[in-house]
Order: sequence, then structure tokens, then C-alpha cells
Amino acid sequence: MPPVVRFELPEWVAEEVGDPRRLYRLREERMDLALRLGERNVERGDGGPFGACVFESDSGLLVSAGVNLVIRTHSSLAHAEALAIMFAQHAHSTFDLGAKDRPPMELVATAQPCIQCYGILWWSGLRRVVIGASAQDVESLTGFREGPLPTDWIERLGDRSPLPPVEVVTDCLRARARRLLREYRDRGGPVYIPGGDKQNG
Amino acid sequence: MPPVVRFELPEWVAEEVGDPRRLYRLREERMDLALRLGERNVERGDGGPFGACVFESDSGLLVSAGVNLVIRTHSSLAHAEALAIMFAQHAHSTFDLGAKDRPPMELVATAQPCIQCYGILWWSGLRRVVIGASAQDVESLTGFREGPLPTDWIERLGDRSPLPPVEVVTDCLRARARRLLREYRDRGGPVYIPGGDKQNG
Repeated sequence: MPPVVRFELPEWVAEEVGDPRRLYRLREERMDLALRLGERNVERGDGGPFGACVFESDSGLLVSAGVNLVIRTHSSLAHAEALAIMFAQHAHSTFDLGAKDRPPMELVATAQPCIQCYGILWWSGLRRVVIGASAQDVESLTGFREGPLPTDWIERLGDRSPLPPVEVVTDCLRARARRLLREYRDRGGPVYIPGGDKQNG
Repeated sequence: MPPVVRFELPEWVAEEVGDPRRLYRLREERMDLALRLGERNVERGDGGPFGACVFESDSGLLVSAGVNLVIRTHSSLAHAEALAIMFAQHAHSTFDLGAKDRPPMELVATAQPCIQCYGILWWSGLRRVVIGASAQDVESLTGFREGPLPTDWIERLGDRSPLPPVEVVTDCLRARARRLLREYRDRGGPVYIPGGDKQNG
């Protein structure tokens, strides 16, 4: 039988989210949720210090959430942003969140996307990305690496005709996003890179 | 309940693979399998004209396989390469295929990775990537887009200290890989990009 890979969020995510019909009008409310998910992920020891959510940009309805589950799911793809995008596409039964019959959607992520999540964004159909911590914050505060994003990655996403543009908004609640990264480091959370020590499992 | 996303290969993949203990000694034998999977994926109408496999580099043992299932799985992440990497990590119960207690592994893909699969490669732990068709082949023969890979992407993967290098080998059975792309175009296979027409689903 062909193998099956399953991605599922921890049970506590639904509790932390609360009322799924709540509308998050302000950008900072949206980031607050992503940060709470990242903070709780670290407290629980479920993964890296990263949270991300997809929202309908106009209404503020939450479409999906994600937290870093790389170690727990045995998948280097299981970054918070990648999972939020997977779950949003699953919820909308489409590979294209930018399809003409869907409302515009945005990713709100506690940190700047790494090279992997930048690539995933490219084909997701998302129209906007809102970021807390910068790549420099991530690398200097935790030791995680971001990979070789082009220096003009924001401009590239914003102007990629004939593909529709993806707007990037930086520095949203950045101080709190930096605190989340420091908290992970101070707890001694694992910083994994490929080619690392032996894997149990 | 939190959502679950499942990725599963079509049943015919196991049939096409045949004996899972077979050892694929030659690079061309490995690419032949990836190409057969891409060819069958097109014949069946299950997705785009792309196949990929992960092998143990030294023994030639097949670790995992993938085909493009973007439309079928409602996921822009479901490129052949991404699925092969997911399944390989699942089979080895690790997010790091390059972990010190694992044999060196390589991805054999019918076409050059797009920006998304380039990013996924970065953290996968794979030690080598073998490619059939070039990005130019993909874009000119099908209309699919590859995204803004850096022009020196091969050098970047090959020299990324302190991360271990990823060797890239190009032009393996490229003529047949190009035929696969043409076959898809000639059959009128869908070429999807974000921001496209309405999605049924």
C-alpha cells in the first residue's frame, strides 16, 4: 500500500483559537493570535518558536492556523507557515487561495519566511504576508537559519507579472515576536539543521 | 477538532514500482523510474508531468516516490519532489534525511526544482539531486512557471557551509524528460498558476 503522510495540529490549538467565527479586524489582533500559538507551542514543547495564521483579508475571518511541528511530525516541511497554507487550501478545497471566486487571503506569521516558506508562498495564491520578527532576528536570537532569500524578496513578491502580486508588511508586533524567539533560546529549545546528530525514531 | 491534511500516492504507483527491494545501481535506472511515474501520471490524468524518487545513493535502494498531485490533493505543495521528500522522511521517521545515522540519500526528479522545491530541498537533508529537464524546458514546453531561482542555485547548494553541500547533477535522460513535458502539453493538460480561474470544490 502506498504510504500516507498526515499533518494535524495539536489539540490545544483549537482551544487557544476559541470562537472560530470571531472576526479579527485589526492587523495586530491577527498577529496576536499567531504569536499566542507560537508562544503556546514553545510552552508545550511541541516545536519551534513560530506561529502563523491565514485570514480573509477583508472580513478578518480566520481560515487556518499553523505552528512549527518539524520534529514532532518528522517533516522538514512542517513549518508554521507551510502548515497554515496546507490547512487553508484544504479548508477551501483548492490549491489556489487566490482563485477568482475566493476572497483575498493573507498569511500572518510571527517571523519572516525562510527560503522554503518563501517558495511555498510563491504558488499559494495568498495576496499578502504580514511578518513579526525579521530573518536577522531569527538567526541572531535562536541560531535557526533562514536560507538564501534574495535581498529584494519583498519587491519580487510585489512585482511578478503575469502572476498577481503578494504584498509584504513587516514589523508587526516585532518586539513581542523577538521575545518569543528569545524565550525559546532561553529554554534551550533544539535548533536543528540538516546533517545533524543521530535521529532517534 | 483540528483539521487533518493527508497526502497519499495513487494506488498505481506501487504497481509501477514493482519489487520494492530492487536495487537501482545506475543513475539512468533511477531516472527511468521517476520518468515512468511522471509518464503514467499524465496517462492517468492524475496531475502534472512530473515524477521524483528518493534513493539511497550508495545501495540504490528506493526510499520513496512522488508524482505531481496539486489539483487532486488541493495543495500547491504537492509537487512530485515535495511528496517524495515527505514520504522519505516519513519512512525514516526523521525530518533530516542527512542525519549522521542515515545512509546518504538523493532526489531523482524528472525536471529542475521550482522555487518551492528548491526551498524544500534546502532543509531536507538530501545530499544529491539528479535532474532531467531544465527549467527552460519546463517553461517553454508546458507554460508552467519555475519561479525566481537564483542563477547560481547549483553553486549555492554545493557550497553552503556550515550546512552540508547538496550536489546537483543535470541532463540525466533529458531528451525523454522533455518528451514527457511535450506529451502533457499535446494532451492539453491544465497549466495552473495562482490567481487563476474559479475553483470548483
